Amino acid sequence: MRSADPRSVDPRSVDPRDSAFIRACRREPVPHIPVWFMRQAGRSLPEYRKIREGIPMLEACRRPELVTEITLQPVRRYQVDAAILFSDIVVPLAAVGVDLEIVPGVGPVVARPIRSAADLDRLRPLDPAAVGYVSAAVAALRAELGGTPLIGFAGAPFTLASYLVEGGPSRHHERTKALMYGDPGIWHQLLARLAGIAGGFLQVQVDAGASAVQLFDSWVGALSAADYATFVAPHSAAALAAVADRGVPRIHFGVGTGELLGPMAEAGAEVVGVDWRVPLDQAAARAGPRRALQGNLDPAVVFAPWDAVARQVDQVLAAGRAAAGHIFNLGHGVLPDTDPDVLARIVERVHTGSGSTGRPSAASASAAGST
Amino acid sequence: MRSADPRSVDPRSVDPRDSAFIRACRREPVPHIPVWFMRQAGRSLPEYRKIREGIPMLEACRRPELVTEITLQPVRRYQVDAAILFSDIVVPLAAVGVDLEIVPGVGPVVARPIRSAADLDRLRPLDPAAVGYVSAAVAALRAELGGTPLIGFAGAPFTLASYLVEGGPSRHHERTKALMYGDPGIWHQLLARLAGIAGGFLQVQVDAGASAVQLFDSWVGALSAADYATFVAPHSAAALAAVADRGVPRIHFGVGTGELLGPMAEAGAEVVGVDWRVPLDQAAARAGPRRALQGNLDPAVVFAPWDAVARQVDQVLAAGRAAAGHIFNLGHGVLPDTDPDVLARIVERVHTGSGSTGRPSAASASAAGST
Repeated sequence: MRSADPRSVDPRSVDPRDSAFIRACRREPVPHIPVWFMRQAGRSLPEYRKIREGIPMLEACRRPELVTEITLQPVRRYQVDAAILFSDIVVPLAAVGVDLEIVPGVGPVVARPIRSAADLDRLRPLDPAAVGYVSAAVAALRAELGGTPLIGFAGAPFTLASYLVEGGPSRHHERTKALMYGDPGIWHQLLARLAGIAGGFLQVQVDAGASAVQLFDSWVGALSAADYATFVAPHSAAALAAVADRGVPRIHFGVGTGELLGPMAEAGAEVVGVDWRVPLDQAAARAGPRRALQGNLDPAVVFAPWDAVARQVDQVLAAGRAAAGHIFNLGHGVLPDTDPDVLARIVERVHTGSGSTGRPSAASASAAGST
Repeated sequence: MRSADPRSVDPRSVDPRDSAFIRACRREPVPHIPVWFMRQAGRSLPEYRKIREGIPMLEACRRPELVTEITLQPVRRYQVDAAILFSDIVVPLAAVGVDLEIVPGVGPVVARPIRSAADLDRLRPLDPAAVGYVSAAVAALRAELGGTPLIGFAGAPFTLASYLVEGGPSRHHERTKALMYGDPGIWHQLLARLAGIAGGFLQVQVDAGASAVQLFDSWVGALSAADYATFVAPHSAAALAAVADRGVPRIHFGVGTGELLGPMAEAGAEVVGVDWRVPLDQAAARAGPRRALQGNLDPAVVFAPWDAVARQVDQVLAAGRAAAGHIFNLGHGVLPDTDPDVLARIVERVHTGSGSTGRPSAASASAAGST
């Protein structure tokens, strides 16, 4: 799959569609294993903390020049194979009129939670004009990024619903599940509306020039596979289907989703994101041969000494060979206290350790690992 | 396995060893499916909140008369099939001299985290005399409980290590994993000491009269199966082995442990606790035919209307028939806002829905579910 192939020599293509990242998403031969990091743009970078100083999160998401700069920061620093738009999954909710704010150290806080049929009307369809700042940022980024792909994203219906129903971040999702089990009619209406908003937000980004999208279902690992299939999968599939005709790869990711990898793959994305609990070779068996995989270094591993980090990176690369396509990433977002220099070394190791054949030689792996 | 059998008629035996709970743990015929709830003694009960008023948690754990009363409260209220000692997994750590407190709304906070070889000396073996208040409470409870079994418990080495290394509750266990991957030598010494303390704490409780024990590895679901096998399983096995010759059933529980049910079963307990993400029939296949299962109603389900709760209870009972033995429980602890009346109805439904054959008739199940 990743054998040497003239078409696979990207460095560095001017068309994102020829990039290693997009090729891996499509399960095509790649010149090297591509790598990016969820939350690569954000709190772990000093240049990010500086530029964000005094600017509330949602406000920052609405300033195209700031979004552009923050999105580019990790690309410059790490030489990652893809940029991901700096934004937040609640941006489209705020854009349709939900009264919410992102509270530092807490997360999204919703002024009036959504828990009844009457509340549903507050979730209007997303008007692309209401997120014109996103289109502007994506367009600006496309001009800056050249051949580096830009990933757009949205929150998946279940995860958005959890914030809206609970009124904020939740450990146990009590009210969300109470609604789901107790009133399936309202639940499905709620998730259908959120699928429309999420799908619309993905469309806006792709239409403005994003080369791929990721649907984040961060909290869906709180459900069993049966409940996922009944209450969530059709809506996640609808959100993903909104950009099915755009010709861009779609990534579908959640945390603690070992039991859900099969059904999540069925929801339609070309790539399934995997957290660190399931090795990629096992994940490949669950997601099936028609899906590329993204992941899955434990984000906590970066706090270990480099030799231990390097071993874990190599293990992920080795297990990833079982996948039909592999995009290296963390198994969840970059943790705030992460040392950016460690991420830079990981990128270097992934790029070096995975040669043009996609199978790193012992020699190159060990050279990359010298301290 | 649970077919009608004269030996299985317990109501209500005066010897805990003949109780439905202990019999189910041993995969013997039972007169009804036994049920208890993790954290059944605690914040969700008004009588608990009243009696705890103004008394710090660790202080409460050290007063045998208070421990006895709090342990009995849910037995009186719910008619559950087992009591669990009111205590905390950090009690034995405090008893060996670790400077810690349990901060309301936060959890255990450790004054000086353990992160180096030098720190290990602070983890001395547990002297049973240092937890004499636990022995006293267990003895008093045995006198009060008659035929109702008392479950003793301890925190498993990994979960205790996370609190000690992080210095308190942690979402990502960064420092714990950094130590585990970065310095396996110290890691294994740390876990061996904690296994000794946990095993010693279980011995104290069994020797004072506990009829069963549970080893709580609440956070171990943060690990992959391979890392669990390498870094954790031998130490959990050692903690469980400390009471192997005492003739009491041992339960082994963690959250998010779908990938770990097989290795956790291998660690030696007679019963494997399952969270709500994996149906019990699938869990039975993973844990093997020589293990009873405990679980696994989602604790968030109790916030749904009763009809939805009843359906979920019935599903758990139905899936539990695939297990060699089934103790009904939640998939994690009772959530603080839980309505005790709902738990009382769940107990009634489990007891009614599971007849003397262990296979509830449709009629009895639906009668129990009226209103």
